[in-house]
Amino acid sequence: MVKQGILSRYRDLLPVTANTPLFSLGEGDTPLTRSPQLENKIGCGSLYYKLEGCNPTGSFKDRGMVVAIAKALEEDNRAVICASTGNTSASAAAYAASSALDAIIVIPEGKIALGKLAQAIVHGARIIAIDGNFDLALKIVRSLSQKHQVTLVNSLNPNRIEGQKTASFEVVDEMGTAPDYLFIPVGNAGNITAYWKGFVEYYQLGKIKQKPKMMGFQAEGAAPIVRGHVVDNPETVATAIRIGNPASWQRAIAARDESGGVIDMVSDEDILEAYSLLASKEGIFCEPASAASVAGLLKLTRRGMDLSAKSVVCVLTGSGLKDVDTATRKTPSFTVLPANLADIEKAIGWD
Amino acid sequence: MVKQGILSRYRDLLPVTANTPLFSLGEGDTPLTRSPQLENKIGCGSLYYKLEGCNPTGSFKDRGMVVAIAKALEEDNRAVICASTGNTSASAAAYAASSALDAIIVIPEGKIALGKLAQAIVHGARIIAIDGNFDLALKIVRSLSQKHQVTLVNSLNPNRIEGQKTASFEVVDEMGTAPDYLFIPVGNAGNITAYWKGFVEYYQLGKIKQKPKMMGFQAEGAAPIVRGHVVDNPETVATAIRIGNPASWQRAIAARDESGGVIDMVSDEDILEAYSLLASKEGIFCEPASAASVAGLLKLTRRGMDLSAKSVVCVLTGSGLKDVDTATRKTPSFTVLPANLADIEKAIGWD
Repeated sequence: MVKQGILSRYRDLLPVTANTPLFSLGEGDTPLTRSPQLENKIGCGSLYYKLEGCNPTGSFKDRGMVVAIAKALEEDNRAVICASTGNTSASAAAYAASSALDAIIVIPEGKIALGKLAQAIVHGARIIAIDGNFDLALKIVRSLSQKHQVTLVNSLNPNRIEGQKTASFEVVDEMGTAPDYLFIPVGNAGNITAYWKGFVEYYQLGKIKQKPKMMGFQAEGAAPIVRGHVVDNPETVATAIRIGNPASWQRAIAARDESGGVIDMVSDEDILEAYSLLASKEGIFCEPASAASVAGLLKLTRRGMDLSAKSVVCVLTGSGLKDVDTATRKTPSFTVLPANLADIEKAIGWD
Repeated sequence: MVKQGILSRYRDLLPVTANTPLFSLGEGDTPLTRSPQLENKIGCGSLYYKLEGCNPTGSFKDRGMVVAIAKALEEDNRAVICASTGNTSASAAAYAASSALDAIIVIPEGKIALGKLAQAIVHGARIIAIDGNFDLALKIVRSLSQKHQVTLVNSLNPNRIEGQKTASFEVVDEMGTAPDYLFIPVGNAGNITAYWKGFVEYYQLGKIKQKPKMMGFQAEGAAPIVRGHVVDNPETVATAIRIGNPASWQRAIAARDESGGVIDMVSDEDILEAYSLLASKEGIFCEPASAASVAGLLKLTRRGMDLSAKSVVCVLTGSGLKDVDTATRKTPSFTVLPANLADIEKAIGWD
């Protein structure tokens, strides 16, 4: 029996009807891997990574997108629309293409980084740049979706959160229990909302006896929830969480308070340190925003948090291949050596 | 119980001893997805894609690398070495980093594309450029591995093939049978060798009653097996299969002949057509080399091959995010529109 993705696997817990097409591009069922080195270094009982970069378009967005697209098909819409320059547009474009739906991506003016849009381009999305910022782009796609037969697939679409909650189900299905703590990056706050919803539902079904504490981390330059006010011009190297006014703000606070967790912030320096540590010690290449979860873990353990008897899951939201520029920022210079053993042995230090 | 990767899952069929560390970075268990549109278009009984780009470093290489690194650890080697500018170096660097082994990557002279090396760089590999071509780089790493306590992790290392054969096991475990045909890109020919080895072993164990026909495809500019002679200066857009003298040449021929399959070639134009079709109709962004399998399928069905009662698996070897340049080759120009509904509706054609 061929694996059918999250719509089939979790259909009873998703807004699936008899008319919902149960298709899959291979989303979900991502690896939950044990930390090779950091777990010991910080003295954690057990430390796992949920590798959402292994989803088919390279981020966790695929979980929600497959539900949003399936519902668009169920409603006989022939197009989807969103405002996004990153992971959402990539996922929307891929899923729309596979279902022969038009995808329309509205992006803000300004320097357009082709790398970030590469997936939307290759999947044939219609890309429209507007003379305005992200908030205005979002406002326009909302208006268009209200006026025309087109499905809005930004995270305002509740099916997105529904799909994303399946990551919690997988964590529990694989561990046999919930972790004590879940560390997660917070940008638009849809993902922390979704994970919490998933854990609560499994708790209500009796599948877990304890829910995890939700530990959300924003970037200091884009930390509206921590600071308690909208950030007008959010700035951070972690572009995927560069959000000044999160759509799921109140639900993130609810997840924090109901779970007894925290929403805190980490600096870009912390994020890049965690990003480098993940690559050089754990063998994981994630996008900078993903590293905010591990940066948060490092911050709290340095301040004395004792995890020696605790289980921890860090959510790594997307693939590092999405942002190769950050990876090659500190590139060594290559000296071309003569092609003989002696010179090369000397360079390696084996002479 | 947390998923443990291919070493644990298939330990009885791998060179695993009591002293082999059974670790995992999340390799294997990749999606086998059903074709959304192409299956109908070409009239195929059933068409599946094995999405090897969903492996943790974005290619199938992780399957063999985890075995090669585990054996290096078992032998108490403290370093691994390979000649590679692409997927092999990325995988070697990641797995070595997670095990605190040094990784040494020897690359040929010439224009060094940072994007291709980004993963090796971020995972902290030692990169040595030499004044010579790939063949010379390979010769040097072989010599070094014979002289020093370092494990060679190029595909000459037999543990690589052992790990890669687990993809066949997964296809069978998921389908409950082998497909009638397996389409696969052929470069160094290690992967077609590994898949065939996997199917033969499952056949010998009685897990399948029929083995698939192996359908291998080289790029026209790098088709030594098809042409019957070494290609001195192989050229193709599909860089991951740009090989003029495949290491597993004879075993690929054996796989073809024993299975009753073919090894044929496709043009760069065919490859790019399949690459675009996969992205725009199937929602899959693979690297150009991966598309050689689908280009081969299109070539044969256009010539009248009848697959109406057949099951087909196409192996897509790596993620398109590895090579964003090819994706953005034909980039549309973005006209920045005024941020009002009327102008945008007009541009979309909704006025």
